[in-house]
Amino acid sequence: MYDLIIVGAGPAGLSAAVYGMRAGLKMLVIEQLPMGGGQVVNTYEVDNYLGLPGINGFELGQKFRAHADGLGAVFQKGTVTAVRDEGDKKIVETADGTQFEARTLILAGGAEHVKLGVPGEDAYRGQGVSYCATCDGAFFKKRDVAVVGGGDVAVEDAVYLARFCRKVFLIHRRDSLRAAKSLQEKLFSCENVEVIWDSTLKEIYGTELVEGITICRTKEKREEKLAVEGVFIAVGMKPNTEVYRNTLSCNESGYLIAGEDCKTNIPGIFAAGDIRTKALRQIVTAVSDGACAVAQAERYLTAKKE
Amino acid sequence: MYDLIIVGAGPAGLSAAVYGMRAGLKMLVIEQLPMGGGQVVNTYEVDNYLGLPGINGFELGQKFRAHADGLGAVFQKGTVTAVRDEGDKKIVETADGTQFEARTLILAGGAEHVKLGVPGEDAYRGQGVSYCATCDGAFFKKRDVAVVGGGDVAVEDAVYLARFCRKVFLIHRRDSLRAAKSLQEKLFSCENVEVIWDSTLKEIYGTELVEGITICRTKEKREEKLAVEGVFIAVGMKPNTEVYRNTLSCNESGYLIAGEDCKTNIPGIFAAGDIRTKALRQIVTAVSDGACAVAQAERYLTAKKE
Repeated sequence: MYDLIIVGAGPAGLSAAVYGMRAGLKMLVIEQLPMGGGQVVNTYEVDNYLGLPGINGFELGQKFRAHADGLGAVFQKGTVTAVRDEGDKKIVETADGTQFEARTLILAGGAEHVKLGVPGEDAYRGQGVSYCATCDGAFFKKRDVAVVGGGDVAVEDAVYLARFCRKVFLIHRRDSLRAAKSLQEKLFSCENVEVIWDSTLKEIYGTELVEGITICRTKEKREEKLAVEGVFIAVGMKPNTEVYRNTLSCNESGYLIAGEDCKTNIPGIFAAGDIRTKALRQIVTAVSDGACAVAQAERYLTAKKE
Repeated sequence: MYDLIIVGAGPAGLSAAVYGMRAGLKMLVIEQLPMGGGQVVNTYEVDNYLGLPGINGFELGQKFRAHADGLGAVFQKGTVTAVRDEGDKKIVETADGTQFEARTLILAGGAEHVKLGVPGEDAYRGQGVSYCATCDGAFFKKRDVAVVGGGDVAVEDAVYLARFCRKVFLIHRRDSLRAAKSLQEKLFSCENVEVIWDSTLKEIYGTELVEGITICRTKEKREEKLAVEGVFIAVGMKPNTEVYRNTLSCNESGYLIAGEDCKTNIPGIFAAGDIRTKALRQIVTAVSDGACAVAQAERYLTAKKE
């Protein structure tokens, strides 16, 4: 019986591992992928994690993992298929049927950006294709970029990028945006934003880096090339919460409902990082959650102590 | 007129500077001390900021500052004496009478641990004297330590340290604790904790590192030496909010009232890091706040855009 099981080894899970080990908890980290780091490892360059400017994402993920390793954190490979709450005992089941028991759980399985599935999208990821304007926008100062999507995030991204990019194309498949009216007004007031309606992304092309996109103007059934160096895909995120939805409260988008204290609706089960409801999903907000979740887990353990 | 003025150059302020510069905001950082880093620079070793294990506090502070410098953040030395809200314009006044204007403010002036003012306290800071068990406790595994205080934090610290320290003395000047009853029960159930009542700390002694403390048993008017390698002083924190108290809502302890979104009661003014109401004051939670505060400041600026 562990004091704490952490599910996930991205920034939130690894930060929780560091805090948990330093707090002397008997704990286990269950990770799905053979190496820690989460989404970070697929990022070409990270420039906003304070203290480590301009670091390669893979290297940052390795540093995160090495930190937890150095403190003696124990990692177990496995895909979690279910969690069960039996009050003072929480049970985690993995795909091979193994059951692990702990007094507290921190769920830190992250979220994934929805992909378009077009040619070039995977090949140019981190070489011009990004799923996060806040993370990567600054790499495209004075360049031309495209944003794909029509919701709040896509419009916010376009407005954000318009501040320092030369030209921003917003590619949207319909003839109106889903985004909030106030955001749309901001968008339309940006002189360097051009909305391309009724159009879908067909392909992202380039050599080493992205050089342009091919779009399809669906009403006119006509293809067109746009020379851009950056493509920001903002068509949604999907939290990795399928296996928790019967047990824990999620919001309409599937995120585990939890505030800054990372408490879910079940005492002793905490949600940390991109998996929980929050306004800003960044590496550092996930790392912060890992620390907060452990502090709350400790508090829970202390209160339960005989 | 700046888009954003950040007051304070600790982890929260510097993270905000990184996010603000990357977002293309016209901004200024006002710092009181000649170099950034905040409390961190006075910390001997930091081992819980994910990705930079076992780093010297001064070095970490320098890395934080260099990151913001590298992105071109502009720093202005000054002690803020007042902030004024004039709606779309916020005014920051410094001790030399200069006035700075911005559309948004992020207040990140931090908080200070209350000191006892006893001999050895400053000399051994980071060499055995600590104000944060969560931060530094792990350096004292299997050692004997003392905690000074009688409130919730002191008792939580003692319970936390008892998990991995050999012996924990809790030194308290009165004959009963202020801490919550439930916490006291936990404390009294820890076999390796000894509460020393009606006693004050007189001196911290050692050679290079702390070797012990002299306490005064006030009722018996008798001095006594205790051999400990760590001294955790938990007699309160004081947020640096004096100059804001007429303008912004503070809680009973003086912290600026703001949640995870860092919003104060005045639209366009944000509080980030130790200065705001929060459950866990750590470097990484402050760095996270810096990012969140900028995201909200951007949202505010976008909404105000003509």
